[in-house]
Amino acid sequence: MPNLRVTDLPAGFRYAARAAGIKKSGKPDLAVIVADQPAVCAGTFTTNRVVAAPVILTRERIRSGLCQAILVNSGNANACTGEQGLADARRCAALAAEALGIDKQLVSVCSTGVIGVPLPMGRFEEHIPALAAELDGEGLDAVARAIMTTDAFPKVAVRRVAAGGRECRIVGLAKGAGMIHPNMATMLAFVLSDAVLDAATAGTLLGRAVERTFNRITVDRDTSTNDTVLLLASGAAGTPPLVADSPAGETFAGALEEVLQELAKMIVRDGEGATKLVRIQVEGAASEADALTVARSVATSALVKTAFFGADANWGRIIAAAGYAGVEIDPDRVRICFDDVPMVENGLGLGAEQEVKATAVLKQSEFTVTVDLGLGSGSAWYYTSDLNYEYVRINADYRSLRQC
Amino acid sequence: MPNLRVTDLPAGFRYAARAAGIKKSGKPDLAVIVADQPAVCAGTFTTNRVVAAPVILTRERIRSGLCQAILVNSGNANACTGEQGLADARRCAALAAEALGIDKQLVSVCSTGVIGVPLPMGRFEEHIPALAAELDGEGLDAVARAIMTTDAFPKVAVRRVAAGGRECRIVGLAKGAGMIHPNMATMLAFVLSDAVLDAATAGTLLGRAVERTFNRITVDRDTSTNDTVLLLASGAAGTPPLVADSPAGETFAGALEEVLQELAKMIVRDGEGATKLVRIQVEGAASEADALTVARSVATSALVKTAFFGADANWGRIIAAAGYAGVEIDPDRVRICFDDVPMVENGLGLGAEQEVKATAVLKQSEFTVTVDLGLGSGSAWYYTSDLNYEYVRINADYRSLRQC
Repeated sequence: MPNLRVTDLPAGFRYAARAAGIKKSGKPDLAVIVADQPAVCAGTFTTNRVVAAPVILTRERIRSGLCQAILVNSGNANACTGEQGLADARRCAALAAEALGIDKQLVSVCSTGVIGVPLPMGRFEEHIPALAAELDGEGLDAVARAIMTTDAFPKVAVRRVAAGGRECRIVGLAKGAGMIHPNMATMLAFVLSDAVLDAATAGTLLGRAVERTFNRITVDRDTSTNDTVLLLASGAAGTPPLVADSPAGETFAGALEEVLQELAKMIVRDGEGATKLVRIQVEGAASEADALTVARSVATSALVKTAFFGADANWGRIIAAAGYAGVEIDPDRVRICFDDVPMVENGLGLGAEQEVKATAVLKQSEFTVTVDLGLGSGSAWYYTSDLNYEYVRINADYRSLRQC
Repeated sequence: MPNLRVTDLPAGFRYAARAAGIKKSGKPDLAVIVADQPAVCAGTFTTNRVVAAPVILTRERIRSGLCQAILVNSGNANACTGEQGLADARRCAALAAEALGIDKQLVSVCSTGVIGVPLPMGRFEEHIPALAAELDGEGLDAVARAIMTTDAFPKVAVRRVAAGGRECRIVGLAKGAGMIHPNMATMLAFVLSDAVLDAATAGTLLGRAVERTFNRITVDRDTSTNDTVLLLASGAAGTPPLVADSPAGETFAGALEEVLQELAKMIVRDGEGATKLVRIQVEGAASEADALTVARSVATSALVKTAFFGADANWGRIIAAAGYAGVEIDPDRVRICFDDVPMVENGLGLGAEQEVKATAVLKQSEFTVTVDLGLGSGSAWYYTSDLNYEYVRINADYRSLRQC
């Protein structure tokens, strides 16, 4: 986040972050985002049947359509922690409400980190009051850092939007590098805006944007227990109320999707061990749903992902992954390109000369694989990373060596 | 296959294998299995929509319920090779039929290896006649070696069965190490018996046994285009005709399942890079189908598999993988054991002392993870391997370095 200026940030929010000793590394691990007034709120959450305590609590809290503070910790997911975990999540929210002088029903909590270990409540008791005393309008970068676990870099994206004659701003921050697969990835994302929205509109726009961004990335096909995306709109920009499917609403929705897409791509680029960001673009499917199924199948194939690591234009693995996706395929119609280099026509490889060019594409850190099924007009995409030694190293040793 | 004796082999079959130059390595890559008389035959094939030419041909050929010869090559899958691929497969069968002096409709062909490259037909033209001249009743081991690609060892299993007052024998041979996921794995398996069976019974018994063996293993969740299992019964043992669900039929079916299970476990143990063979046993599911879904989800999780490699008793990843399987789960009822070491009760970890014991289990090369959902009586299992550096190495460089 090299060039983020305070003037890029939506009005009406303050931030604070600390190293509270939840992570063994001593790095920042506790943060709060506070709206000056109760903000309109919408959220999307993990689809895992095993749901972490903070997700249970936050899902319940935001039903009101309002949220004034998000308390978030890294280093401990508060997942698989039973009744105690839920009581701890409630206690964290209550501590934050007390320190901030706001209604505890307006506090959402998010946690990310190791599963199955109770929250070290003493750390929260000690550090939440201090956090509340350190709030300022410039601390967003510190929050983005405090929510990192195996992330190599903080993830922030901003957009300015002219909506209904007024300018409003959107900023998103996210964490996530492993256990990344929709719906949804092991990720937290917070999106803040000073636009004027009602809760229903916020929910609609967030849902649509998540579907086309965070729900189309994969690092390892593992869906976490803690995934949460929250959108808070402070209304401080004084735009007219934005409504879905209106011109101003569409403009805002476009910017919102751009923010989420930028964050989603950062997550894949920061995928555990990832050296490449690859867009799998499926065209010519019988339907959009079929296209998405094929894109997901190719994007999650371990063999395709290791071939990306090896810069091997192994189109046979791509066509095989399309073939086992479970939807209609006619191999004889398949066309595959690496960026603009055709490699397969009518299901047949185009030979050594094309392969040399395709290999050059695969050596780049970012490229697109287009799979045209030649059946209809359905299209969809997915972002994925390569699978390599570093992913194995990180995940074989996660708890013993990193404890982040 | 250290202790295989000729007397363990079913009567009525002969074998030959050669290095025909299809593999760049110069290792054996072409083999034939021939029955003295047309044998009763049943088969199961890949569920991938992209189907290799030899699978298309063999599926068609065995509809008659009879097969006298299987011609198999490694080093080239003859997949994604279009009309030419199908013509090549037919030509291979015709060459074998001519050399063996049998009806070409009785020849099945199987191929495994690189996708998307035409078969080097000159090699087949040259070597098939020589192969036919080298047939003998003891060459099964050579065939098992000639079908290897990334396999580290040949895979053979044998059983003797007393059925209806006569002894018959079953021998199975298989290849497979990567692109392993049902339905079915990148694998070929040939099962030969001298029992007397009709084609319908052979199909029923083979289908049941495959469902409980080859369809419950995974190395990398990638389903190949070439998977084929063929069962040939020569009838040379002179048993009474075996019928499914009769006592003799059940005895035979039990032995058949044992042969397939032994081969299936060998494939996982030989999974690309694998250092561990892990049985995921799910108990207490609402139904057997749910149990299988959860077992598959845990067995295919990259995070679970890397934790196995790291001997990390990271039960949070197991419970998360159960949670995203898509079936009913009540996390508060989940119980997890590593072999006989309980690690989770009622969804909660049992602490550091148990973890020390669990870690000792995970350091073994073979163990069972039992996940009891506490909901019903459905149970199922899956075999999987660990995911590690060597898998990445093998698959990032497959075509450039190994070409096997």
